[in-house]
Amino acid sequence: MFILGERPRGNADCSGREHVMADQSTPQADLLNRLSRIEGQVRGIARMVEQDKYCIEILTQVSAASRALQSVALGLLDSHLGHCVVDAARTDGAEQDAKLEEASAAIARLVRS
Amino acid sequence: MFILGERPRGNADCSGREHVMADQSTPQADLLNRLSRIEGQVRGIARMVEQDKYCIEILTQVSAASRALQSVALGLLDSHLGHCVVDAARTDGAEQDAKLEEASAAIARLVRS
Amino acid sequence: MFILGERPRGNADCSGREHVMADQSTPQADLLNRLSRIEGQVRGIARMVEQDKYCIEILTQVSAASRALQSVALGLLDSHLGHCVVDAARTDGAEQDAKLEEASAAIARLVRS
Amino acid sequence: MFILGERPRGNADCSGREHVMADQSTPQADLLNRLSRIEGQVRGIARMVEQDKYCIEILTQVSAASRALQSVALGLLDSHLGHCVVDAARTDGAEQDAKLEEASAAIARLVRS
Repeated sequence: MFILGERPRGNADCSGREHVMADQSTPQADLLNRLSRIEGQVRGIARMVEQDKYCIEILTQVSAASRALQSVALGLLDSHLGHCVVDAARTDGAEQDAKLEEASAAIARLVRS
Repeated sequence: MFILGERPRGNADCSGREHVMADQSTPQADLLNRLSRIEGQVRGIARMVEQDKYCIEILTQVSAASRALQSVALGLLDSHLGHCVVDAARTDGAEQDAKLEEASAAIARLVRS
Repeated sequence: MFILGERPRGNADCSGREHVMADQSTPQADLLNRLSRIEGQVRGIARMVEQDKYCIEILTQVSAASRALQSVALGLLDSHLGHCVVDAARTDGAEQDAKLEEASAAIARLVRS
Repeated sequence: MFILGERPRGNADCSGREHVMADQSTPQADLLNRLSRIEGQVRGIARMVEQDKYCIEILTQVSAASRALQSVALGLLDSHLGHCVVDAARTDGAEQDAKLEEASAAIARLVRS
């Protein structure tokens, strides 16, 4: 996962293993921070429901959590294009086509969700 | 919160307090269940990131969590229209306008998020 | 169609016939202007395709046309809530439920499109 | 423009000039057909507004036109990934980064529109 970091140029395998470090400043750590904030947002929404908060306020928080998830998705996609698709583009034929189709399908799911 | 339940006809105040019961089968309990599943989905996505799962698989889970949040939002909105907006429609003038504007703004945020 | 205009308070029938005037400044005229601009945008996109413009520039125009259509939809929905739903809220029982369900379904289609 | 056609493997320049033919069966002709249908849909929506059709019916048509535009966008993006991004991936450094950033920005606009 390399979102937000400088985009390495196709020198990683698609699971990106060698880039993973425990350090806060890595893209993986950043992504985990963002997901943990979203988890907290969803828990906060549940608390609002338990406390019978006003629907519109709850909806505002749901929209905020959705946008945060969308940002995570765009970051993942960005890093995927910069790695797996770039790698695939250097091969030819069937593998390249399969990777491009897979990326297009993921984009379509995202646009439609 | 009254999503999925039969829509009461405007006889609740907007926070819907009198409809809340501890019982699993209430709309509130259903909503809390759904939010707790979404929280689990987000935690699962973080685990996938930690385990360096393939980006496309992670993206699929992010899209699923987004759709689940969207469903929660549509349920909340539906119940809001059935309660607060219906109540407001029976009053007149400024209060009614304010409620309708508030609902429209929430719908716009949702459509654009 | 009453988008952008002051919201009348439920004194129109749902098709809003009595509000329609030839005059530019009516909400209906405004809506027709907007639709005619969108039609022009779509024609412009076709021209860009014919002239082999760069995909990214075409995509930017497609996104702009999508957002314009979305605005039209939000305006229509807003006026629908202010008329038909408010009218229905003053009746009771089956008709009210049917109108609310119809509005919720339209919102869901919009959010998911 | 190559949507729906077999994806050529990066042997076209980004504006895709050499693929353009007058023939109906080309991806460009298909795209133009789709855009002309969308133009007709938008004109049909304007006619519904003029005839004071019921808001919910108009909204249904607006959602359909939005989905059709979204499909056009996904097709364009798909062809862009298969051409320009694949081409860029075979170069190195600054040009590749610029192309990937541009594609990511277009995807983000699409997801958020």
